[in-house]
Amino acid sequence: MPRTTTHTIHVAFGDCDPAGIVYFPNFSRWMDTASLAFFMQCGVPPWRELEKTRGIVGTPLLEIHTQFLKSATYGETLTVTTHVEEWRAKVVVQMHRITRARADGGEDLICEGREVRAFVRRDAQDGDRLRAMPVPEDIRQLCS
Amino acid sequence: MPRTTTHTIHVAFGDCDPAGIVYFPNFSRWMDTASLAFFMQCGVPPWRELEKTRGIVGTPLLEIHTQFLKSATYGETLTVTTHVEEWRAKVVVQMHRITRARADGGEDLICEGREVRAFVRRDAQDGDRLRAMPVPEDIRQLCS
Amino acid sequence: MPRTTTHTIHVAFGDCDPAGIVYFPNFSRWMDTASLAFFMQCGVPPWRELEKTRGIVGTPLLEIHTQFLKSATYGETLTVTTHVEEWRAKVVVQMHRITRARADGGEDLICEGREVRAFVRRDAQDGDRLRAMPVPEDIRQLCS
Amino acid sequence: MPRTTTHTIHVAFGDCDPAGIVYFPNFSRWMDTASLAFFMQCGVPPWRELEKTRGIVGTPLLEIHTQFLKSATYGETLTVTTHVEEWRAKVVVQMHRITRARADGGEDLICEGREVRAFVRRDAQDGDRLRAMPVPEDIRQLCS
Repeated sequence: MPRTTTHTIHVAFGDCDPAGIVYFPNFSRWMDTASLAFFMQCGVPPWRELEKTRGIVGTPLLEIHTQFLKSATYGETLTVTTHVEEWRAKVVVQMHRITRARADGGEDLICEGREVRAFVRRDAQDGDRLRAMPVPEDIRQLCS
Repeated sequence: MPRTTTHTIHVAFGDCDPAGIVYFPNFSRWMDTASLAFFMQCGVPPWRELEKTRGIVGTPLLEIHTQFLKSATYGETLTVTTHVEEWRAKVVVQMHRITRARADGGEDLICEGREVRAFVRRDAQDGDRLRAMPVPEDIRQLCS
Repeated sequence: MPRTTTHTIHVAFGDCDPAGIVYFPNFSRWMDTASLAFFMQCGVPPWRELEKTRGIVGTPLLEIHTQFLKSATYGETLTVTTHVEEWRAKVVVQMHRITRARADGGEDLICEGREVRAFVRRDAQDGDRLRAMPVPEDIRQLCS
Repeated sequence: MPRTTTHTIHVAFGDCDPAGIVYFPNFSRWMDTASLAFFMQCGVPPWRELEKTRGIVGTPLLEIHTQFLKSATYGETLTVTTHVEEWRAKVVVQMHRITRARADGGEDLICEGREVRAFVRRDAQDGDRLRAMPVPEDIRQLCS
């Protein structure tokens, strides 16, 4: 079974739109935060350190596919559950499920997102340029 | 050829993250704005009016699939080009392409998103509940 | 001593700007969330309920004055400490202090904000209009 | 008369909260963007260039005081008018007025903000540390 982490969200008033429900780009924001929290909880050092020590800038998104099943609103507590679905040569595929606990002990699935992320480092010549790099084996070990 | 609209974005400093590039949930935000701008430019009245006259609350997202090809940064001007790819019974599929003009007269594709949106109205009994509804024929006409 | 509540913030990557520090409008967002959390922790029902039962829509801002002393960055945990500094006829003045714990057991003051908020209700005739209203005595009791 | 610039805002659906009006931290965001736009329109090079050539990172906020007079909502166009109220040794004070045109040719003042900003550069020894610096005379000239 793959390593799985959870990340808690308290939905704020300002996260909601005039329809009174979470404005959906906030779900992207929370999945991004859950993605980083996954790496941190697995023991990967912060990118700002890895940039200095190994030139690894982070894991920018190549692709995200999100499906929205139920709406959520302010005052609610949501949980993002994250795991890696697939490792490729230079890419990691993360799955995020955002759920809300129900009074009956079950949970409602609010939305589900599949992120494809590349590992990138700064170019040795031109520091403003980012380049894809092979998934570092130690990071893969930590996260599996 | 389907009706196509464009929407201009001036990328702000605060739209960018510590890597110095646009923080990706902002692309979702801009696609959402472009989606609404599409309906407005096609002559559909604001949802806040349609809610009062016909109970139509808007077009919440069911699904979004975005691919990121190049990064963008603050000070740049981007264009979102939007059209409807498909109309289904209760659903509209919108395509958004975000591009940046190049000095040579061409353009770079920054990212591309496909949104599946439902038309919803408030439930007649329980005003807090939103219900899917058939795509209004007049709105479809205006947008095609 | 006035009633005081605390609200915890986990600073996310996307909360930070290209300088690598919290983009300051996020402090406004967190103070707004802390303002609402203050009322909830004091036992005031959610505005969405009070709107239905008593027409009270919420406490929109009239004024905010924020001073920034130190920067914060992602991965850090901050605490917003909130209390009411002053009650006026139709207005409440809230103070928010955002701090970060230090390794030596002390804390650093990151920023400090003073919010002046009005209590408003929907106009009886024109529901789109908001009107200032006297501070409800029961709410004042709960929050003092 | 001080140099004055304007910056246009198209209020988006997602800029508004469940009360249907602009969520106030967005005004901070727009004032920040107007602050930068002011410097750019006056002919100051982007901070990312000044950081490389002269070590100047930007003008982080020390203090902001905003007063809210009228609400605004999506679909509206607002104008931010910006000028420098005062130059001090290491500090610039900017005033932003956000207005909305009225049908009668006049304008409504939505909100007004006074920002106190420091000029900062990276520390020569510790590049992660930011230090206040005297207002560069050439930038002051351009902006007056």
